[in-house]
Amino acid sequence: MADNILSIETVALDDGKNALKIIDQTRLPGTVKILSLTRQKDIWNAIYLLQVRGAPAIGVAAAIGVYLAARDIKAANYDAFYAKFKKAKEYLASSRPTAVNLFWALDRMEKVVLDNKGEPPAKLVALLHDEAVAIRDEDIWVCRSIGEYGLTLIKNGDGILTHCNAGQLATVKYGTALAPIHLGREKGLNFKVFTDETRPLLQGARLSAFEMVSAGVDTTVICDNMASQVMKNKWVKACFVGCDRVAANGDAANKIGTSGVAILAKHYGIPFYVCAPTSTIDLTIKKGSDIVIEERKAEEVTEMWYRERMAPAGVKVFNPAFDVTDNELITGIITEYGIARPPYAQSIRKIFEEKKKQSGSKK
Amino acid sequence: MADNILSIETVALDDGKNALKIIDQTRLPGTVKILSLTRQKDIWNAIYLLQVRGAPAIGVAAAIGVYLAARDIKAANYDAFYAKFKKAKEYLASSRPTAVNLFWALDRMEKVVLDNKGEPPAKLVALLHDEAVAIRDEDIWVCRSIGEYGLTLIKNGDGILTHCNAGQLATVKYGTALAPIHLGREKGLNFKVFTDETRPLLQGARLSAFEMVSAGVDTTVICDNMASQVMKNKWVKACFVGCDRVAANGDAANKIGTSGVAILAKHYGIPFYVCAPTSTIDLTIKKGSDIVIEERKAEEVTEMWYRERMAPAGVKVFNPAFDVTDNELITGIITEYGIARPPYAQSIRKIFEEKKKQSGSKK
Repeated sequence: MADNILSIETVALDDGKNALKIIDQTRLPGTVKILSLTRQKDIWNAIYLLQVRGAPAIGVAAAIGVYLAARDIKAANYDAFYAKFKKAKEYLASSRPTAVNLFWALDRMEKVVLDNKGEPPAKLVALLHDEAVAIRDEDIWVCRSIGEYGLTLIKNGDGILTHCNAGQLATVKYGTALAPIHLGREKGLNFKVFTDETRPLLQGARLSAFEMVSAGVDTTVICDNMASQVMKNKWVKACFVGCDRVAANGDAANKIGTSGVAILAKHYGIPFYVCAPTSTIDLTIKKGSDIVIEERKAEEVTEMWYRERMAPAGVKVFNPAFDVTDNELITGIITEYGIARPPYAQSIRKIFEEKKKQSGSKK
Repeated sequence: MADNILSIETVALDDGKNALKIIDQTRLPGTVKILSLTRQKDIWNAIYLLQVRGAPAIGVAAAIGVYLAARDIKAANYDAFYAKFKKAKEYLASSRPTAVNLFWALDRMEKVVLDNKGEPPAKLVALLHDEAVAIRDEDIWVCRSIGEYGLTLIKNGDGILTHCNAGQLATVKYGTALAPIHLGREKGLNFKVFTDETRPLLQGARLSAFEMVSAGVDTTVICDNMASQVMKNKWVKACFVGCDRVAANGDAANKIGTSGVAILAKHYGIPFYVCAPTSTIDLTIKKGSDIVIEERKAEEVTEMWYRERMAPAGVKVFNPAFDVTDNELITGIITEYGIARPPYAQSIRKIFEEKKKQSGSKK
């Protein structure tokens, strides 16, 4: 069995070295390599190349990244500092287009600067440090809470199907879609997890399988096109997936293939749950078709991982990184403030009211 | 662009060398290598290792294979000959469990021996030669006819989605699911073909894309999990797939993932056609759940094609080679004697009546 990676955080701020520490996810499952990144170019690349991936983890990495950029800013006053900070923020925001957490985390960091207009750069840097740490701490709380809500939907021994990796490796700890499984293990519950390998980048075979096996979970890898047969065999009681952006109407963008899993689940009468931190829900986007979908290089499909090119010269390739699952296919959206059910326009609004109430009561 | 392979037959009998000639499909698309096989062990392996694959091509290969075995039989009389022939037939039949054409072709060869009880071995061998050639010739006619019927269902410029390879490379010539595309090209029609890569063995990316690009067809490779998005984009007017065995009620076993494509097509309102030579329809099997499904090695999913193992140690793998698409998901079954429509129990019976009529009128 692989080493238990649960003791390592996926994304961390190393204050001693002023570095972003991440597990290089492009090397898993063969090699567990920790990267210590200090240069903005390397942090941008880490997000672009999926060395760190998963919407929540990207958010935390970007927050830490822009804090590290702020530390290096040489500026005599607030305005000069803010101009350079803004540039650093925009640079990191350009690394990937779909995951709203990236923008959400960077906006939160920018708000710290805007809310402290006129303060000296040294103080701004200190505040940015604390905000990055807060975003990281909240991510752990959010995932734990999603795990608790998710656990109310399944029972000991159930078969669970997941797509891509919305596990610990996509967050700081616990994960979103896999949080119920990790939390369940802490409580002595055992689930049987089926993980789609998730072409082209195999996050399911490489990452979800790795963290599940590491946690001692009964885990079966299948090719994406085998999900229908696994469901037909009645091996799956529920599907849990993560998401990169949810629209106000509940349409959810997630790793390519998610919409297909949802359609299969509906066909076979299996509940399909999207696990979404509220930071992933973008109320400014009305419906899924308004979400920008990243298209990636053809070579990810035709060459990557292979000894030789696996498609003929002259063939076209369509390689969208995400697709949108229509709200009608989603049984529930599990957030840290509860489970939204259809109709989502109303239930999502309620979740945000609850969030506001709880944030208010914490202050 | 790749060399046009349409001038090479996928499976052929080389009378000069008394050999089975096949294109080694495990080497495509990188290398076009012709194998010349004379030993039974090599022919068995070629089927088992998918050097030759696709239900019709396997049938022709097995017919030629068992004829070559018959040539080598040393027997003084009919009974000794038949005993050895039976053994050779059973050996080849054990190479793969799902494709009914394998058994159908071998049974047809055996029938030649049984129908000529008491004849001397030399005459039996000559008759077996002619039967193997007849099976090969019929395969070409059958595929052309399926192509003609298929062409009545689509129009110039349509987008067509296919899964795995039921093309020329799965038959002697033309293919089944891809026959309408090849025939359409002959008639000056152009289609846009989307081919699922078809994990784990990538027959779609390697084989369908290769033969389509070779034929000058506008071809796009997608990962299996992208089919939902391609359909949502309204790029697909019809799905054409092959099959390995069709039950009397129209349930169709085909490459793993086919049932998922059918469910997606139904969801998006796209017609889904199974292209099935009548030799693939097994009237002795009542329904799909009675079809034996071959499970293959875990390493096909976790290691094959890869530089390194792509799933962690300790993980289980489920690797069925086929799945069954329920008849309710199938818009039509295209045979060489016409298109069967639901309800299939009746329409398939009608197809066989038509076959009987035409066979009778040919004599």
